[in-house]
Amino acid sequence: VTVTLADVQAAAERIRGHVHKTPVMTSLTLDSELDAQVFVKCENLQKVGAFKARGACNAVMALADAAAERGVVTHSSGNHAAALAYAARSRGIPCYVVMPETAPQVKVLAVQGYGAEIRFCKQSERQQACDAWQAETGAALVHPFENPFVIAGQGTAALELLLQVPELDVVITPVGGGGLCAGTAVVVRALLPTARILGAEPKAVDDAARSLAQGVLQPAVPNPQTWGDGLMTGLGEPNFALLLQHQVEVVTCEEDAIVTAARFFLERMKIVVEPSGATTLAAIRSIAAQVKGQRVGMIVTGGNTDFAWLRAGS
Amino acid sequence: VTVTLADVQAAAERIRGHVHKTPVMTSLTLDSELDAQVFVKCENLQKVGAFKARGACNAVMALADAAAERGVVTHSSGNHAAALAYAARSRGIPCYVVMPETAPQVKVLAVQGYGAEIRFCKQSERQQACDAWQAETGAALVHPFENPFVIAGQGTAALELLLQVPELDVVITPVGGGGLCAGTAVVVRALLPTARILGAEPKAVDDAARSLAQGVLQPAVPNPQTWGDGLMTGLGEPNFALLLQHQVEVVTCEEDAIVTAARFFLERMKIVVEPSGATTLAAIRSIAAQVKGQRVGMIVTGGNTDFAWLRAGS
Repeated sequence: VTVTLADVQAAAERIRGHVHKTPVMTSLTLDSELDAQVFVKCENLQKVGAFKARGACNAVMALADAAAERGVVTHSSGNHAAALAYAARSRGIPCYVVMPETAPQVKVLAVQGYGAEIRFCKQSERQQACDAWQAETGAALVHPFENPFVIAGQGTAALELLLQVPELDVVITPVGGGGLCAGTAVVVRALLPTARILGAEPKAVDDAARSLAQGVLQPAVPNPQTWGDGLMTGLGEPNFALLLQHQVEVVTCEEDAIVTAARFFLERMKIVVEPSGATTLAAIRSIAAQVKGQRVGMIVTGGNTDFAWLRAGS
Repeated sequence: VTVTLADVQAAAERIRGHVHKTPVMTSLTLDSELDAQVFVKCENLQKVGAFKARGACNAVMALADAAAERGVVTHSSGNHAAALAYAARSRGIPCYVVMPETAPQVKVLAVQGYGAEIRFCKQSERQQACDAWQAETGAALVHPFENPFVIAGQGTAALELLLQVPELDVVITPVGGGGLCAGTAVVVRALLPTARILGAEPKAVDDAARSLAQGVLQPAVPNPQTWGDGLMTGLGEPNFALLLQHQVEVVTCEEDAIVTAARFFLERMKIVVEPSGATTLAAIRSIAAQVKGQRVGMIVTGGNTDFAWLRAGS
């Protein structure tokens, strides 16, 4: 699997009209706190409430007609599931989704709302459950983050951001499976060769940080406990390779910092950012001295949450 | 007191650079639910998190230098207080604010953050407390909704909306003291003579609805119990006159509908709208049959809340 700037540009063409061009927001309070200029790319305001609409639409729209007819299948803790269901409905094809039993209710309802069929399973058994369903139906697997069309699709958020805000010194995205971070790295390294590219990861699921530190892909953390429910999965193999190739650095963050960051978006910027997306702000705050005076592009990834973290103090 | 379109246009000039041009958002889910086109004017994304920044800035910037030096004083349940504190700081003058003891903590902190002095009092004694402080300091009173510069300033939100979205059939705002609703009525009646102009009011504080129905200003509801903490005050005299003059209709809404509407903004549109602002959606839903096929401008007024309503069920 490799993904290039041209792939991302083709994806942007392919998904036009199916996804929003999301706004970029700024906050004087945040800029003053960090002594930097932060540009928040609001993928929480994207279709289905997350950047995942980009990758899913690219993968679904790229299918040949004969394959598309049999539908698409995937496993996902939430946003990719809703995104694939949305993309499949847009194309009028069936969609089958395996979800972990722990998925937030609001995400389950979203997937059902887009008309997909759901099967629940344990987090550790999702790949097997997905494979079985694929065998039954003949549907095309659209992996949530290892599919090159998905990675290229996710990269369109950064492509759009660089058109809206040229001249960034730093671009940061969350990193879970790594599709968004890899797609972003492809775009930013090509268009802003000297920019710093960061991935934000909960310390409780720090496999990406350890993988990059050791130069060898580390296994996923089993049964992680984190507010970042969208980031519990391990870093994907092709994404690991792209992160290494494009010199991405991973910054880990504490759980209370994630909640505090999500609260900041809610209470000060008046937007809903799910904890997974708020890792970007938590991570930037933890390296505030390094971004002083810089222009930071921050991709906040989604707004689908049941707000349980709002009652968690801090 | 009278306020004209020219006053609102002058206000727009005066406050430029001190307030945001706020975005207009749409939701396919909402449009499909109502079979209408709804344009949400996001004053929750305004400076200080509420449209009140418009009126306060207009009043403060219009003061003569000699008067301005002695500062400004007001009473407010929250957003006007923060707005006046912000406007006063922008001009570098003192600000004194009387707040009810029941004001949400998040609004108290905002006022303090902008450097204003605060005195707390019972809801029923706020006018007296404000008068006393004014006598002590010689500050200019900036009433939260009866001051003509405040009313004209609030009208700039509608002026901006009509530039962003021409051809509206209905424009709705919340109505508490009535400054925003009156300023909006002045603008809309002048620019869209046949449009329907609506005020949304919690049924628990329905003095505006009863005032318009009877043609005589009714007294404020004592000790109202409503989630719309920004709408607990009674309709102001000049605003009542402007509402009558411009044929505004008031639609009341139930408390559970207010909470459901605030949740919709939060969970589906991913923006924070305080319950007072969400009355607009609650009211439109209650008259859904009447707006079928129409283009509705909905001014959501603020995003300052402690989210207590999120735990209130429904």
